[in-house]
Parts: sequence; structure tokens; C-alpha cells
Amino acid sequence: MNIEQMCIAAKAAAMQLASLSTAIKDAALLAMADAFEANCDAIFEANRKDLEAAERNGISGAMLKRLELTEKKVAQMADGVRQIAALRDPVGQTIEGYIRPNGMEVRKIRVPIGVIGIIYESRPNVTADAAALCLKAGNAVILRGGSEAINSNLAIAKVMRDAIIPCGVPEGAVQIVETTDRAAAMELMKMKPYIDCLIPRGGKGLIKTVVENSTIPVIEHLDGNCHVYVDADADLKMAEEIAFNAKVQNPGVCNAMETLLVNEQIAHEFLPKICARLIEAGVEIRACEKARKIVDGLKEATEEDWETEYLDLILALKVVSGLDEAIEHINKYGSRHSDSIVTENYSAARRFTREVDSACVFVNVSTRFSDGYEFGKGAEMGISTQKLHARGPMGVEEITTYKYVVTGSGQLRQ
Amino acid sequence: MNIEQMCIAAKAAAMQLASLSTAIKDAALLAMADAFEANCDAIFEANRKDLEAAERNGISGAMLKRLELTEKKVAQMADGVRQIAALRDPVGQTIEGYIRPNGMEVRKIRVPIGVIGIIYESRPNVTADAAALCLKAGNAVILRGGSEAINSNLAIAKVMRDAIIPCGVPEGAVQIVETTDRAAAMELMKMKPYIDCLIPRGGKGLIKTVVENSTIPVIEHLDGNCHVYVDADADLKMAEEIAFNAKVQNPGVCNAMETLLVNEQIAHEFLPKICARLIEAGVEIRACEKARKIVDGLKEATEEDWETEYLDLILALKVVSGLDEAIEHINKYGSRHSDSIVTENYSAARRFTREVDSACVFVNVSTRFSDGYEFGKGAEMGISTQKLHARGPMGVEEITTYKYVVTGSGQLRQ
Repeated sequence: MNIEQMCIAAKAAAMQLASLSTAIKDAALLAMADAFEANCDAIFEANRKDLEAAERNGISGAMLKRLELTEKKVAQMADGVRQIAALRDPVGQTIEGYIRPNGMEVRKIRVPIGVIGIIYESRPNVTADAAALCLKAGNAVILRGGSEAINSNLAIAKVMRDAIIPCGVPEGAVQIVETTDRAAAMELMKMKPYIDCLIPRGGKGLIKTVVENSTIPVIEHLDGNCHVYVDADADLKMAEEIAFNAKVQNPGVCNAMETLLVNEQIAHEFLPKICARLIEAGVEIRACEKARKIVDGLKEATEEDWETEYLDLILALKVVSGLDEAIEHINKYGSRHSDSIVTENYSAARRFTREVDSACVFVNVSTRFSDGYEFGKGAEMGISTQKLHARGPMGVEEITTYKYVVTGSGQLRQ
Repeated sequence: MNIEQMCIAAKAAAMQLASLSTAIKDAALLAMADAFEANCDAIFEANRKDLEAAERNGISGAMLKRLELTEKKVAQMADGVRQIAALRDPVGQTIEGYIRPNGMEVRKIRVPIGVIGIIYESRPNVTADAAALCLKAGNAVILRGGSEAINSNLAIAKVMRDAIIPCGVPEGAVQIVETTDRAAAMELMKMKPYIDCLIPRGGKGLIKTVVENSTIPVIEHLDGNCHVYVDADADLKMAEEIAFNAKVQNPGVCNAMETLLVNEQIAHEFLPKICARLIEAGVEIRACEKARKIVDGLKEATEEDWETEYLDLILALKVVSGLDEAIEHINKYGSRHSDSIVTENYSAARRFTREVDSACVFVNVSTRFSDGYEFGKGAEMGISTQKLHARGPMGVEEITTYKYVVTGSGQLRQ
């Protein structure tokens, strides 16, 4: 099938999906979860091909880790899908309802968006997460993954389709673009008559291409230049654990910390400990002048470092005069993704959460929790970095829209 | 000021507006409402210039009515602004909140979008409505109205700015583009670093230009090809009143009925009465074959009539075999704006509201109620015809976004 044929099939499927029963959708999701576990050998075999190609292309460690499917990751994929099945069906939910003075009843009812296209790079589990969320929300989805994970993506898509179609889900509900050539992606961006929403999820180049070429409304999933700010009133042991976790636990993902900001009042006590621990874990630290005076041997940070999403074991480090400078730095250099403060001070926590203009603002929590699964959404379509429609981790509710249902008894406009 | 300077001022204002107190915003709104009433002579004088120019350009009756500001309309503008002042501040509202198994508290908090640009045609009261809604929601707004209402728009904007700035609202909060040349509008569409959302409100040509040229996320406000379907089980007297009101009460607006669908079982009884009444009111009826056999002298409808938003005293009329054909016709030819069924049948009402894929679906209510003011929102930014972010009449909540505020006690990702 070519792109337009896929779009036509998706649109037809979306009409059916909008009124497909919750029972059928949930049964299909449970079948999908079981199928991942039953077919993990086939998935691993396809994934090995991608990993070998990546190694031949000299892909770095953190990026390889994003690409690799482990038993733990497949188990989490299946668990996420089961969690999605267990969620209340968002379709038909009354978001708001009230009666007007003229007696007319106004209800805002949640409905599917229709057809969603997702153009993504790297992580193959996105294939499963996106398909499961779209199915639950009654949307048809067209998946277009990157070349680096194409074998894994095709294997996962086959397992899903084989599981859900026998349950009564229409053929066009979950489709994957089998080619990774650029022309197919460009064609997808022009399919406005069929696609209601396009989600690009990947690096700056991908997002820019989609925003500039798409005539379909887009939800951007751009970079995560995330910060942890250690306040003067922080519990320094907690701050050390959070900073270490945010940088090292999985450095190749968008919610990993890229810049650590440290209040100058506690920098002398805090920096030697955290730097030693990060360096021991293999992290390269690029620091401001003040930090380099406290800890010997740190590399010098340039202006570019404050703006960079490394996605690797590299950290920018800055000593700041206080909360004002921390908030200003984050709002200036950050990507409005996820930022955390470590503090025991009530007013500092309140100001940080109000004034930092990011999708997710954390107090005393690792930025790594900025994630649909961790937020209890089962999985995520991605983490929106734009303000329109949805912001932060997108689960089933964030891929729905609504309609107004208004009932009356012959009301006329005066 | 040129467009970029206006955008810079708007962005700076948006930062201040986000934390401006509810008390200051509401006081400014009340001052704005009072100022409309106190300065209505100046507004009418500017409006007269626009009306004279429109008459010279041969603008039709319904369009002239859209452009004209009457005492009733200014009173409604002021009343709408007072209603907006009385609404609860949407900023800071907790949309959802829960605790995760690891003890972290997740809250979804409503926040302003930032800077909103609105490019609109015709009706000058949009200038007031958009500014008041944006101020309440903590957004800065850049208004760019059409040439046909430029004098009215500039007069309204001056009255507003003079009223709100002394109340403590930043200078850049409400700005109007003084020129109506196309180049300025095109420049606005490229101001992605400053503008978070662009709302085009007008005809197909305007929307197409914006969608194709804007790199800023867009909320489309396209045409309203609205339907009333008179079911076999309708109260025919109620149906007659609703159909007449939906067509005649204000034919130049997007929520006026453009096509009337009538069930063939009651067509012989219903059509003679409603057609006589519509014709008496000056409506030109373009009808299908079946209707023309029942009522003499009706003009023949072409395929194009089913797709047309007349915005005038013209009506397309079709006799349908039943609910299935009515729903199919609406989903095929309609613009997914506002559609109404008149029926006493429970199942027909239920199917119509579920299966018609429009922003607003009505049962036994005139389509003319598809309106922010009538929905209790005080006013509206317009009526969104896209599915992303907001659908149907947009009030203050629909021009906000949210952030996740997550608080914990040192949670780390495993």
C-alpha cells in the first residue's frame, strides 16, 4: 500500500474505532500484551539486526542503549499495555456539564481525535506504546519509525496486528510505513484530508522538517534540556542522589539532566561529593568558573553547553547566586521540558513551580520521572514540548478531543 | 512599532501576565466594560466609516449586519466582558491530581498559553471579545483585524488600552496591528519565537493562507456549513420554529443553518409550512427533486449547494430517507461545526449526537446557540473547526494550557 492508501484505510478505521466497544478495545490490548511476551524471540532477532547496523555505523553507547530491547523492556512494554487496558475508557467521558439559564443542557464529551500520524526516531518501544494508546483512545494510527530501528519496529507492528485484528479491531487501525525513505515521510505531512494530528518525536532536525512542511496540525516532541537546581536549603544527601539519578540512570533519554545548577551557599560542601561520584561513573563535567575553583580538573563550559541536550554522559555545571538566577537560567536556556528543584524551603519550592515555564516542574524528585508510564498513564505518545493541545507526557486523554452535546426543548436565539 | 517589536513587547507582557493577580485582571476587565459604554459614540463614529466604505464596495445585507455595531451589540460586548470578569480565574486551577505508588504527587495545573495572535475578518466585536478573554486567561494578544472593520477595530482597541493599562496591565498585553496590508499578516505568521498560538478566524481563503504559511501552531476557525435535521418523530411546530430561527435570525454568521434535511415521512406535512414562512422572510430555497415535487416553484439544488456556506438568506433543502442518510449527508458535506436534530425519539437523538462528527451537536435547539456567550463563556475567541487543542466555541479555559507540578521526597528512578 502507498501512503495515500494507508491514509484512506486509517480514516475508514477511525470511523469504526470511534464507536468500537470498550470491551473489544481492552480485549485487543490484553491480546497485544500477551503477544509481546509470546513472540519476544522474534522481536529480539529483529532488534539484533538493528543493533548490529548501529554498531557498524559507530552509534554511541547511550544511543545504543535507547535502541536495545531487553527482556526488561519487553516486559515493561507488555505491562504498559496491560495498564492501558485497565484504564477507564476516555471516549464518552463527560469533561464538564451544566445547564444554561434558558434550560439548555451543555455537555463537553471526550471523543477520539481521528487519525494520528507519528514520525519518530530511535526507541522501538514507541511503536508499541503509540499503537496501544491510540487504540484505547479510539484513534487510528500511522506509524513511521526511523531507519535505525526499522527491523524492530516492523517486528513489533506485525506482532500487534496479528494479535488485535482477530479481536475485532479494524485492519486500518494500526499501520506502519514499511519504507524509511524521506519521500514517504514528506508525503505523510501533506495528508491533511485524512490525518487529524501529526506527532514528530525526535531530534531538532526531524521536528524542524515536520513543522516547516506539514499542513496537518503538529504536536512537537522536541529536545529535553533538563535541569536540577540544588537550593541553599536542600537536603544535600537527597540532592546528591537526585542529581546522580537524573544524569546517570539512563543518560540517552530526553528527561535526563543536562545541566546541574548549584546555589553558591552550599557549593563548597556539595560539589566535591557529587563531582567525585559523577566522574567515577564516567561523566564528563563542563563547569563554570566558580565551580572550577571549588573542584579541580573540571573542563570549562562554553555558552553552547548551557543550550545542549547531550543525551550522553556529559554534564554542564553552574554555580548560581540563588533562586532568581536559577529560574532565569532555566527559562533562558532550557527547552521547557522537565526541571527539578531540591529544597526544604516552602517559598523556594512554590516560586520554582510557578515561575519555571516548563511542561513538568519537580520538587525533590528526579527529572527522570517525566514519563507517561511513571505518571500512571501506562505509556506515552511522547513528551510534548509545545503548549497547544497537550504538554508534557501524553497518555490516552491527551490524544482525545471533545464535542459539545447540547440538548434542549425548542430553545430559539433572540 | 513594527511586527517584531510588537511581538517582543507581547512576550515580555506575557511573562508578567502569567503571575498578574486575579484582582488586577478583573478590575481591568470591569474598567474595559465601563469604557465601552462611556465611549460608544467614538466607537459608532469609527464604525460608520467602515459601514460607508462597505456600502461603496457593494457589500451584501447579511455581511453589512455582521459589520454594524449597534447599541445592543456594544451593550452585549460590555456584558460579555463583565461575565468574563465574574468567571473564576482559570490560571492555577488544578485540572487533575493524584498520588503515585512511590508517593510522588502529580498535579496538572492550568497556566496561560503565552502570546496569542488572532487574524480575523469582519465583525469588530471580535476585537473586544478576544482581548478580554486573553487578559482573563493571562495571555498577551496581538490583534490583526481585516480592512473592512479597521476603523472600528482601532477605536475599540484604543478604548480598551486606555482603560486597562492604568489598572496595572502591562503595555504589551493587548496590541493591535494598525495596518491591514498582507505583508504584516505574513510576517506575523513567521513569529514563532514569540507567538505560541495563531488563531485565524474568517473565510476559507484566509484560513488556507495561514495554514500554509504559518510555522506557529494554528487553531483554525473555518466555515460553518450547519444543518438542521427534522426527524420523523419531530414535534413539527418546534421543528418549524428551530429551522426558521436557525436560518433567519442572523443569516450572516457561521452558526446559521445552511442546509435543512427533512425526513420523507413528514415532508408532505412539514415542507409546505416551513417553505412558505421562509419565502415570506425573503429566503431563496434551493431544493432536491423530492422537495420540489412537494412544494412548487423551488429552485433546483446542485451538488455545490450541499457544500456551500451562504452566509445569506439562501437555504439548501433535502428530503432524506431517514436518520442514516441524514448523518451520512452531514458527515460528508458539513464542515464539522454545528448541527441539530429535531426529534422526540430517544434513540434517534442518541445516535445523532454520537455519530455526527461535529464540534457542536444539538437536540431540539437552534444551531444559533453555538456561541461562547450562549454557552456561558462570556464571549468567544471564535469557534474552532479543528480537533486539536480546542473544538467549538472557545472561552477562557480553551486558551490556556497546563503544566505538571510533581512534588516528592527524594524519589529516584529505578
